[in-house]
Amino acid sequence: MSSIYDQDLPRNDANFAPLSPLGFIERAAQVYPNRLAVVHGRGEQALRRTWAQTYARCRQLASALRQAGIGKNDTVAVMLPNTPPMVEAHFGIPMAGAVLNALNTRLDAETIAFMLDHGEAKAVIVDPEFALVMQKALALRQSPQPLQLIEVEDDLYGPAPVRLGTLTYEDFLAGGDPDFAWEGPADEWDAIALNYTSGTTGNPKGVVYHHRGAAVNAISNVLEWDMPKHAVYLWTLPMFHCNGWCFPWTVAARAGVNVCLRRVDPEAIFGMMREHGVTHYCGAPIVHGLLVNAPAALKEGLPSGVKAMVAGAAPPASMIEGMEALGFDLTHVYGLTEVYGPATVCAKDEAWDALDIGERARLNARQGVRYHLQREVQVLNQDTMTPVPHDGETMGEIMFRGNIAMKGYLKNPQATAEAFAGGWFHSGDLAVQYPDGYIKIKDRSKDIIISGGENISSIEVEDVLYRHPDVLAAAVVAKPDARWGETPCAFVELKAGAQTTPEDIVAHCKKHLAGFKVPRAVVFGELPKTSTGKIQKFELRRQAGSATAINV
Amino acid sequence: MSSIYDQDLPRNDANFAPLSPLGFIERAAQVYPNRLAVVHGRGEQALRRTWAQTYARCRQLASALRQAGIGKNDTVAVMLPNTPPMVEAHFGIPMAGAVLNALNTRLDAETIAFMLDHGEAKAVIVDPEFALVMQKALALRQSPQPLQLIEVEDDLYGPAPVRLGTLTYEDFLAGGDPDFAWEGPADEWDAIALNYTSGTTGNPKGVVYHHRGAAVNAISNVLEWDMPKHAVYLWTLPMFHCNGWCFPWTVAARAGVNVCLRRVDPEAIFGMMREHGVTHYCGAPIVHGLLVNAPAALKEGLPSGVKAMVAGAAPPASMIEGMEALGFDLTHVYGLTEVYGPATVCAKDEAWDALDIGERARLNARQGVRYHLQREVQVLNQDTMTPVPHDGETMGEIMFRGNIAMKGYLKNPQATAEAFAGGWFHSGDLAVQYPDGYIKIKDRSKDIIISGGENISSIEVEDVLYRHPDVLAAAVVAKPDARWGETPCAFVELKAGAQTTPEDIVAHCKKHLAGFKVPRAVVFGELPKTSTGKIQKFELRRQAGSATAINV
Repeated sequence: MSSIYDQDLPRNDANFAPLSPLGFIERAAQVYPNRLAVVHGRGEQALRRTWAQTYARCRQLASALRQAGIGKNDTVAVMLPNTPPMVEAHFGIPMAGAVLNALNTRLDAETIAFMLDHGEAKAVIVDPEFALVMQKALALRQSPQPLQLIEVEDDLYGPAPVRLGTLTYEDFLAGGDPDFAWEGPADEWDAIALNYTSGTTGNPKGVVYHHRGAAVNAISNVLEWDMPKHAVYLWTLPMFHCNGWCFPWTVAARAGVNVCLRRVDPEAIFGMMREHGVTHYCGAPIVHGLLVNAPAALKEGLPSGVKAMVAGAAPPASMIEGMEALGFDLTHVYGLTEVYGPATVCAKDEAWDALDIGERARLNARQGVRYHLQREVQVLNQDTMTPVPHDGETMGEIMFRGNIAMKGYLKNPQATAEAFAGGWFHSGDLAVQYPDGYIKIKDRSKDIIISGGENISSIEVEDVLYRHPDVLAAAVVAKPDARWGETPCAFVELKAGAQTTPEDIVAHCKKHLAGFKVPRAVVFGELPKTSTGKIQKFELRRQAGSATAINV
Repeated sequence: MSSIYDQDLPRNDANFAPLSPLGFIERAAQVYPNRLAVVHGRGEQALRRTWAQTYARCRQLASALRQAGIGKNDTVAVMLPNTPPMVEAHFGIPMAGAVLNALNTRLDAETIAFMLDHGEAKAVIVDPEFALVMQKALALRQSPQPLQLIEVEDDLYGPAPVRLGTLTYEDFLAGGDPDFAWEGPADEWDAIALNYTSGTTGNPKGVVYHHRGAAVNAISNVLEWDMPKHAVYLWTLPMFHCNGWCFPWTVAARAGVNVCLRRVDPEAIFGMMREHGVTHYCGAPIVHGLLVNAPAALKEGLPSGVKAMVAGAAPPASMIEGMEALGFDLTHVYGLTEVYGPATVCAKDEAWDALDIGERARLNARQGVRYHLQREVQVLNQDTMTPVPHDGETMGEIMFRGNIAMKGYLKNPQATAEAFAGGWFHSGDLAVQYPDGYIKIKDRSKDIIISGGENISSIEVEDVLYRHPDVLAAAVVAKPDARWGETPCAFVELKAGAQTTPEDIVAHCKKHLAGFKVPRAVVFGELPKTSTGKIQKFELRRQAGSATAINV
């Protein structure tokens, strides 16, 4: 016999609704209709729209898409910088039942063409800045499926170098109903977004997000930052990157302000911060580094207590100190596209405040603990799928389970099955777990260097390189070696005016590393980075083969 | 053909976990093990436990319950004030898979016996303060099912007047495993709590909460209050009332502090606020009234900016002013047991700040808008189930839909079906909706007075009574009348030392009300209140029949 608690108590329309971030903007528009939602530009001529206006535009977008025959489970690709249409795309497209595919704006035409084909996009919204590359991508596209082209116009950019069609974004919206009666997803498992990973080999994989996960991670962002209502969020992080770590939905949940930003530039960023009273922003280390290293004159009169979130690499001590000098509060998070952006956080312990900067930086460099509403993160032995000892030494793979994980990879059941093998999402990152439960990445599985049978963590070597006062950025990869199999090869970007030699760098490493870990080659120059500021190690691996070895 | 977004992308253990508030305490204990979780009492001898300790005790409780044969879907009743075991019950009982039934400690033995029988409780945890009434309830109980009795001991109360059995709470816990490997619910729809409504007629109904709703409302509490991590929450609101509006789970989600409180008393409350640095508390209007009207000497040195939440009745202007004088920030929420406590909030608009106190009080007296993660609240015409015009005039019934609504009433499919008829939860409260979308209650369905064919809102008459300077509390009910069918009868509690006469009250009402709305009888005396501070109108209705009419 079933329990009394399972009898006659089913779900119904009154007591169950699919979780979705779409309700967030509806509530913001209802409760705070006249609050600022979006600001684009500076000064008198800046574009400002309230939540009521933004919501009406999102409904117009949804309505216009429906009229264009685009609805449930249709893909709508966008190639947009962090401008108002990009904010609107995060609501209007799923309000039509469609799936938002935000394309990385730094990609080449071939890759974009692949994504348009693979994702089966039925419409593309494109910014004038990317008209040329989109034109090329469209020519390379193989699908015979018609594609609705929608072209944004933006006074802050100027005219597009080429027109792709005849339909502007504003004209398209004008045909839509601002009172459109959109419906939320029928199932919270329905897709809301498609994000291609910038895979280092092979074709990009299409990570599918669902409404439930988007809502849960958007709220987790609030919880981590104690983010108050009406927070003012500056868009330094590209919204095409894991949907801006779900922050378009977070900002709506807080009826906050989206401060748009076309380009990451210290003068613009500091100017926006002062003018709009920015309270929060996110970015890769390179973004924070730009701010820390900006001329002092740019830093005057900044709002105090700005909260910053960093992911992509652990912030070095110098960055933490620089942020403190700015009066900013830096939070280190970690995640991947597959887990909606941040899925762990290095939650600070008040006891750390008393420690010196080196120790604080060491503790804060860890990837930390599970994000608030993520169910579990563990470092597991890849063979046994059991937790490694929490000794800060034993390596395993970071694995996640819970509501902050993708539906899977689009049209790729094999990759999906591999990613979720054993009921955990496999991050591919190798890490240790400390006695306090905090996780620290030691390396990507594929970034480990195996030299004479010994594993070398490229991150450990990089940490040492970053401690050299003349090093701005560093990356270490494996260099094929006839004798050792592989040896570490260091690529180093020096600070302006630095006079350091490769031999100096090696000498520095010898002081801090076991001999077999010391780079056998050191190459100076600008490092190749992805659109999100991550160093492209696959490119460096190509170069490493021809790098000149130093006699260590 | 199904969409590409529905192919090969199913839920699995890696990307789906049942929502539950139980993960909140696990995370608090992992990330903030040494942070204070519970404090009970004042000064040196106060009991203090960290999140690690509290979590270990909850696991012991769950483990001990399992050893006692209590598990999935078994009911565990508790008759506890706001003490540490009550906090632990909110986690330990559901960690065993069981369902927490927090009994209203102000109920009589007959009602408690009914609840123990109806809920099929397999165990009871009882505080010494309620040993006598529980002894009587056990004697009245009809079920032959064995009942595990667990008796709390508390130095702050002293010895129980009678021992009911032989097992103390601490002994019971001592038999449990502090590392017990509890499992979350298999389904987020599983029951977590059973709360009996204090029905005014008939037997109490058992409202069943599920894990998903408890988690969603607990997080909504954070969002409404912008509640930061490590908030210090004072337990003025009984945890037996809608599980303390879900705040035991909210406080865990914030790794905050539960400041326990056995009895609502201004000296104790202000003392706790000062000593423990309280930042947040909730209560019925009577609780806030007690604080506002406390002697000035008690109010010295209070923490500033304390956030207070009020529900159960709209806060009058005098209370809002009094709270402002204290430096407290008052938020008006509205809900019912069936919607986990608060499910709407009178979200303040910054434009209101410039208004005079009367206007602010009028705006703030509204029940407002849906709670953050509730999907919808509407005032619907009861016949057509369509929204009433947002004109502030047209009455309808407040109805909810979304994730903040009960599973239903235990073993009462008919009441459940009625409550959810038409796919909305029917609150039974009659209200209007304003052009800004805010809702204002005009009356309970059953509290409306029909006099000579005209509807009289008892709340409208009460609002006028409250404006009389000598009125401390007031309630208006229908008095049977041979000529008019019903007439309004006022019950008034005067402030100490007031010399007002019933005739003065009537004269005051005539100034502000249409003639047919003026009370035909005015009765002075203390008003009967429920355990949660609500005035018991059913009791007043009984008295109204014999109240002496005044010649109006």
